[in-house]
Amino acid sequence: MAYDGSALRGWQSQPGGRTVQDTIEAAFTIVTGSRVPIHGAGRTDAGVHALGQYFHADPVHSSLGPADWVRALNARLPGSVRILSAMMVPDKFHARFSATGKHYRYLVRTRAILPPHEAGRVWHFPGKIDGEAARQVARLFAGTHDFAAFAANRGKPYQDTTRTLTLVRVAHRGTLWQIDIAGSGFLYKMVRMLVGAIFRCASGRCRPEDIRTLLRDPSTKWPHVAPADGLYLVGVSYPRQEAAPTDSKP
Amino acid sequence: MAYDGSALRGWQSQPGGRTVQDTIEAAFTIVTGSRVPIHGAGRTDAGVHALGQYFHADPVHSSLGPADWVRALNARLPGSVRILSAMMVPDKFHARFSATGKHYRYLVRTRAILPPHEAGRVWHFPGKIDGEAARQVARLFAGTHDFAAFAANRGKPYQDTTRTLTLVRVAHRGTLWQIDIAGSGFLYKMVRMLVGAIFRCASGRCRPEDIRTLLRDPSTKWPHVAPADGLYLVGVSYPRQEAAPTDSKP
Repeated sequence: MAYDGSALRGWQSQPGGRTVQDTIEAAFTIVTGSRVPIHGAGRTDAGVHALGQYFHADPVHSSLGPADWVRALNARLPGSVRILSAMMVPDKFHARFSATGKHYRYLVRTRAILPPHEAGRVWHFPGKIDGEAARQVARLFAGTHDFAAFAANRGKPYQDTTRTLTLVRVAHRGTLWQIDIAGSGFLYKMVRMLVGAIFRCASGRCRPEDIRTLLRDPSTKWPHVAPADGLYLVGVSYPRQEAAPTDSKP
Repeated sequence: MAYDGSALRGWQSQPGGRTVQDTIEAAFTIVTGSRVPIHGAGRTDAGVHALGQYFHADPVHSSLGPADWVRALNARLPGSVRILSAMMVPDKFHARFSATGKHYRYLVRTRAILPPHEAGRVWHFPGKIDGEAARQVARLFAGTHDFAAFAANRGKPYQDTTRTLTLVRVAHRGTLWQIDIAGSGFLYKMVRMLVGAIFRCASGRCRPEDIRTLLRDPSTKWPHVAPADGLYLVGVSYPRQEAAPTDSKP
């Protein structure tokens, strides 16, 4: 599924609704007449977007096939939330616990004026960017590290703050910068903190050595978190055998 | 200037505000402390976007230079409305009456599901499109014709419904279609009616001959108007000498 997070209050259900989960569960209720809890691959914060989010819903006794579900749910969802495809999965499949990796993208516009169609969708970070410094910091993050300095508090402490990033790529076309980050798992707000570090250093406000130090000795927290606006969940990886062959892309 | 028309009620000032003109005049009032009426190159309807709209404001006694105006106004405008650049113009310049041409773009998504980030910005027209039929209708529109059949009523009748289109181009990349239409002048809702005709015929619901007949004998109105969502005012042309050399693109 995909969503434009601008007007949504994040993934997770909360009183007052207007979250992605609440919106989809409301559509399920209209279609089925009963409450169908859904389980997302991961929670996204308020304002964060998705191009390839996943969820599963527990068995619903119904004659609807995957393509019917896509049509029926989309007909009840606002245009800012779209189911892209559906498939039957084995009972043991869980959208969150079966996931083996996630791919995030972050968009940044560095020119003086943010085009109005990018408001709420791209981080506006005006100024000159040193692409080589940006790539240098990105290279520091790739691989396996203790990312404790790049994790926001999320209530309960982490048992282990070591994560492996398989991709940290910086690219740009004119003044639009795109950071792709993929890995097996992420700490709370980690992607936004890594992007914050890349752009602080790329604009001359920190040095790659400062970042290297924080990865070696994560006793202090990195304080600069990039805003939710520019963040997209691009995709989630699952082991091949977990998906049954009844895929449906309308 | 540019704007995301999704949440705006069109260009022209109206009671209750929330139009582009009201929004900009409100910013002028904050900056100058007095009312500064602005004059747009053309009115856009509610929901229509602009990538290159123009307006002029009559002389304001102020020490602000063009770049200062851009910064001062953008600081008071919502992110959905951006001044892109400003310049001093001769007294005889008028954003509307000096304009010699306009360029519009229309975006259409033909795949089954409209990506959420395109909601309100791209016309969702799912189905198979015959690109050759689309280009055939586009070729019929190019040049000088009586477009009376492709004009909506706008209160008072037109004295002359003949217009010249210098560009009518159909292009696509996958399921995203882009129609570019430029000309010296346009009738009310004309672009949206031409796009309606192109896509009706391209989806097999009319024939290019039907369109040719309407151009020769415009006694009946074409009934299919494409929605405002997909329409962008891309640019306005002015004679070169009308602009003074004090341009400022921040």
